[in-house]
Amino acid sequence: MEKLKDYVSVQDEDHFYHQGAVELLIFNFLLILTILTIWLFKNHRFRFLHETGGAMLYGLVMGLIIRYVTKSPDVESGTVYECEKLKSGPSTLLINITNQVYEYQYKREISHHNVNGHQGNTMLQKMTFDPSIFFNILLPPIIFHAGYSLKKRHFFRNLGSILTYAFLGTAISCIVIGLIMYGFVKAMVHIGQLKQWEFHFTDCLFFGSLMSATDPVTVLAIFHELNVDTDLYTLLFGESVLNDAVAIVLTHSISIYSPKENPNAFDAAAFFQSVGNFLGIFAGSFAMGSSYAVVTALISFMHLTKFTKLCEFPMLETGLFFLLSWSAFLSAEAAGLTGIVAVLFCGVTQAHYTYNNLSADSKMRTKQLFEFMNFLAENVIFCYMGLALFTFQNHIFNPLFIFGALVAVFVARASNIYPLSFLLNLGRKQKIPRTFQHMMMFSGLRGAIAFALAIRDTDSQPKQMMFTTALLVVFFTVWVCGGGTTAMLTWLQIRSVLVGVDPDEDLKARAASQSAPNLDKNTTKAESAWLFRIWYGFDHKYLKPLLTHAGPPLTSTLPEWCNPVARILTSPRAYGDQLKDGDTVYIINNDELTENYESSAHIAVPAQDSTASTQATGKEDIQEGDLGLGGYKLQIQHAAGQPQKNSLA
Amino acid sequence: MEKLKDYVSVQDEDHFYHQGAVELLIFNFLLILTILTIWLFKNHRFRFLHETGGAMLYGLVMGLIIRYVTKSPDVESGTVYECEKLKSGPSTLLINITNQVYEYQYKREISHHNVNGHQGNTMLQKMTFDPSIFFNILLPPIIFHAGYSLKKRHFFRNLGSILTYAFLGTAISCIVIGLIMYGFVKAMVHIGQLKQWEFHFTDCLFFGSLMSATDPVTVLAIFHELNVDTDLYTLLFGESVLNDAVAIVLTHSISIYSPKENPNAFDAAAFFQSVGNFLGIFAGSFAMGSSYAVVTALISFMHLTKFTKLCEFPMLETGLFFLLSWSAFLSAEAAGLTGIVAVLFCGVTQAHYTYNNLSADSKMRTKQLFEFMNFLAENVIFCYMGLALFTFQNHIFNPLFIFGALVAVFVARASNIYPLSFLLNLGRKQKIPRTFQHMMMFSGLRGAIAFALAIRDTDSQPKQMMFTTALLVVFFTVWVCGGGTTAMLTWLQIRSVLVGVDPDEDLKARAASQSAPNLDKNTTKAESAWLFRIWYGFDHKYLKPLLTHAGPPLTSTLPEWCNPVARILTSPRAYGDQLKDGDTVYIINNDELTENYESSAHIAVPAQDSTASTQATGKEDIQEGDLGLGGYKLQIQHAAGQPQKNSLA
Repeated sequence: MEKLKDYVSVQDEDHFYHQGAVELLIFNFLLILTILTIWLFKNHRFRFLHETGGAMLYGLVMGLIIRYVTKSPDVESGTVYECEKLKSGPSTLLINITNQVYEYQYKREISHHNVNGHQGNTMLQKMTFDPSIFFNILLPPIIFHAGYSLKKRHFFRNLGSILTYAFLGTAISCIVIGLIMYGFVKAMVHIGQLKQWEFHFTDCLFFGSLMSATDPVTVLAIFHELNVDTDLYTLLFGESVLNDAVAIVLTHSISIYSPKENPNAFDAAAFFQSVGNFLGIFAGSFAMGSSYAVVTALISFMHLTKFTKLCEFPMLETGLFFLLSWSAFLSAEAAGLTGIVAVLFCGVTQAHYTYNNLSADSKMRTKQLFEFMNFLAENVIFCYMGLALFTFQNHIFNPLFIFGALVAVFVARASNIYPLSFLLNLGRKQKIPRTFQHMMMFSGLRGAIAFALAIRDTDSQPKQMMFTTALLVVFFTVWVCGGGTTAMLTWLQIRSVLVGVDPDEDLKARAASQSAPNLDKNTTKAESAWLFRIWYGFDHKYLKPLLTHAGPPLTSTLPEWCNPVARILTSPRAYGDQLKDGDTVYIINNDELTENYESSAHIAVPAQDSTASTQATGKEDIQEGDLGLGGYKLQIQHAAGQPQKNSLA
Repeated sequence: MEKLKDYVSVQDEDHFYHQGAVELLIFNFLLILTILTIWLFKNHRFRFLHETGGAMLYGLVMGLIIRYVTKSPDVESGTVYECEKLKSGPSTLLINITNQVYEYQYKREISHHNVNGHQGNTMLQKMTFDPSIFFNILLPPIIFHAGYSLKKRHFFRNLGSILTYAFLGTAISCIVIGLIMYGFVKAMVHIGQLKQWEFHFTDCLFFGSLMSATDPVTVLAIFHELNVDTDLYTLLFGESVLNDAVAIVLTHSISIYSPKENPNAFDAAAFFQSVGNFLGIFAGSFAMGSSYAVVTALISFMHLTKFTKLCEFPMLETGLFFLLSWSAFLSAEAAGLTGIVAVLFCGVTQAHYTYNNLSADSKMRTKQLFEFMNFLAENVIFCYMGLALFTFQNHIFNPLFIFGALVAVFVARASNIYPLSFLLNLGRKQKIPRTFQHMMMFSGLRGAIAFALAIRDTDSQPKQMMFTTALLVVFFTVWVCGGGTTAMLTWLQIRSVLVGVDPDEDLKARAASQSAPNLDKNTTKAESAWLFRIWYGFDHKYLKPLLTHAGPPLTSTLPEWCNPVARILTSPRAYGDQLKDGDTVYIINNDELTENYESSAHIAVPAQDSTASTQATGKEDIQEGDLGLGGYKLQIQHAAGQPQKNSLA
């Protein structure tokens, strides 16, 4: 009794007053270092090591220090106890030690060869935070921000190609990686490195699906800084955003896939069930995300007579917007769907409807809030990836498996991009040039999503091996491919600040390039025209008037017998105020979209005027829609300009 | 082996895809409900149940539902295992169950009578989050925001009184509660409810110190809404902000206090060591917080020739500001000091220096970011307090102890406010009226800090009893005192919208009240004049020029032989740009401060003009400095106005 009391009280005094503070301080320190580095890089236009790569490097060094400098304070570390009466591992273990009951919480299964002195090191343990924090807290802001800043016009112009790369491409990538890894696993079993029963084909496919999530944050940030060709940017951005969603749902479906008898044999029923699962989860998540956004739009739009409108309380409005968007993610997760897909489409829908209903103040607040959260979350994840190499305690390094994964990742990317580009070029009026294809091939970086999917489950040994391998692939691609982006752009002669565009005379150069014989950029829109036209008409006539203050009043778009209902549902502002400043902005935006669309549908030969207008607006879109850190200067202007614009209204 | 595998995999399938999502969703749901309620309350001017009380109520109902509706999924719940070989409770337990090693994490000690069916309920467990989350994540934004929005002028005017209430008052409160509780504990031992060795006098003092932290968030929000007298507001705000810091350091010192032999006897050496600890920790935390703020000011002020200034990247600037302020908290905690004190003074210093160096965009970003975080954190804490009554699994309800605590809290508040007010009134030129004293007595609500201090340590049974009691006291004071604020204001006839001030003719009423014989408000400043004058001169001449762009250049304030150093340290803007718009604003602010101060020092009889100016500016200050949710409308104007002001510069 006495000994125990002593023991616990020593622990208490040590840890009572700084539980968790040291660990958080380490992250803060790494982030501060990263921010200062970004500042330094911005000043020196240094592009060989990007900030994400830098964050990872700092994390790595810090992990090394933590592992080998801090010593384990726990005397009992590495000792394994036996408990005869215990037949299974309950999630909460109540244990009676010398007449006092203690509560213990289940953490994980540990492979015997990892039971060593480091195992009990509380410092290492605390640095390894719960994977659910990744999924529930760090990823949602990143994905939401991607959706919220996605500009629909450019996205829709290349919709066909983006969907092909994202759905078909990811499936191809998953299967190719799965097959190659299965070959390596067979070889490993043959030379005795692995036991047969440890690694099934479904495990290989699982690894394939998680390794198929590309994360070109680094590449896109550089693209933005270098003013790289708009179409290439849009293709990569669109592909990577959707591809994450597809890869996550794919991983989920594969982990559910459970053939009845022999796990290595092909079970058609289980396969089709998985495909069904995939479609069901994707559609369900999409519906969940959009409906949360529609609810937000409706609340922010409410114009009950007795109530002050919510937009008069910008903090409440921002809070509600933030909480409902996050709830979209959490509800989808809680319902067994995929939160990432839900929050992505929630972001897109919020940007399309709710954003228009917000007060000027809230527009700025939400934009800056999500931008800031995205920035922090991204850098935390990259720092953490660096840290994890040394602080995670159940790594299983297998050189053959790692080599196999690197080969598989590149082969899979090649068999995704080149064949699909060939097929797409058959249908596209504006072909995807070879140089773009090479660049897309090269930009297949693995990042946050692959890491998060791998760390989600590290209970069993095959999963631990996959996690270690995924982490190393992330390191390799971020440092090698990320670092080589600038060199590759120069080598491939892709239009950017480096090649053909003078940073100071960017606009002049653009004007010049238009007078030269140019690719007919606009005609690409035709490929998604029919779907887009139907959707756009429906949205403009019914949804926008119902959910926002913009668009024509419902009374004019709905058939006459709907008039009583339409009158209730239409905002009073939609009638009389239609010509006021605030609304005209939306209407102009819409008309601009229509004009652009129509001009491109009718004019097959590129007319100088329409090209000029699309390029100018296109560039603007991308500056607003960038994922990374490039848009600071624009943000200042934007933030300063917004209230002034509104003060005129 | 097979049984175990089955067991774990069932758990996996259940929890793998929504780890933590449901719990977060519940919090999101409660917060959304709270926001909608606030909106409703704002529309109906409903003041009997404040939003914090509402949040607590929602939490309570949700806790009830979770406890009695969800059933325990853990088959093994409530079973206590024996382990003969285990002699102490290690923080990490490696346990070998049927040939597989599992890792368990130490959670807490459990009293035998709490071992029941609910114990293993994972849902309840997950809703009870780690107390370190409170301290490291939820409290810092609240306290920082209090410091950041503290307006120095009004604070310094009443500095003497505020310091007296905060330091002396909290000490009195702590000792009175401690003594009364010791009496109750003795009585409980007498009637056999408690064993002698369980509760020492130091435990009673510990309870006294944690119950001395007042949290008038609710009261101040109502005060703001009702335009309550400025001096009363400042006294309460100042007292509560500093009193939290004092109570926390006191709790820390008492928990360190360990007399050598008999824990009930008075040990002078240990007592003085505790006093020394108190002073050391307070001073150390103050230094830590201020120095982080100074570092931030210096970084944001840096004007190296080759470098772009940080303020050209608002996101990096905001990020650095946020991370360094948080690091002040975490460093203090990691160094064994008190993070709350550090982050409070960090906030005050940041507002004084760094804020002036920020770009217009960052000024707004940081303000909105901290406001938003404060809002969320506050509501999460109040929801959580409601939840904790039913979800926390180790409550020990002892009616006598709870009754004792309620009595002690009110007696202690009375013996803090009335005697100290009497003493202060001896020295103050403008007396603190009886009505103000009654209102301050009534506003002694217990809230977030008391709760956080109590939940920090619930390992032993006395601590669990203290936690339960503290929670109930918080409920009682927030609902009864918080709900009765409006009634009390009316009853005491304190000047507010309810009494004497017409909301629509507020300014007219103010002008009218000035022509009537009025209390000489300004003369109160004289009491802190000598300290304030020295500090102000030093700050204006040396610190402001060194750390910001404002103030006279150092070359003119430092002695001549310092000129070379002074020239390097002074911002180039301080020389030539002194007359430009941006700087003039600061200079005007400073001069305004000086003028106010001088006018009050010289004029003993209230002159109509100076009173008018102080009242007008004073009101503005408080609207900017409020803790709660009242300032929405002002925020809109402020946010919209700021960029315009700057666009003129």
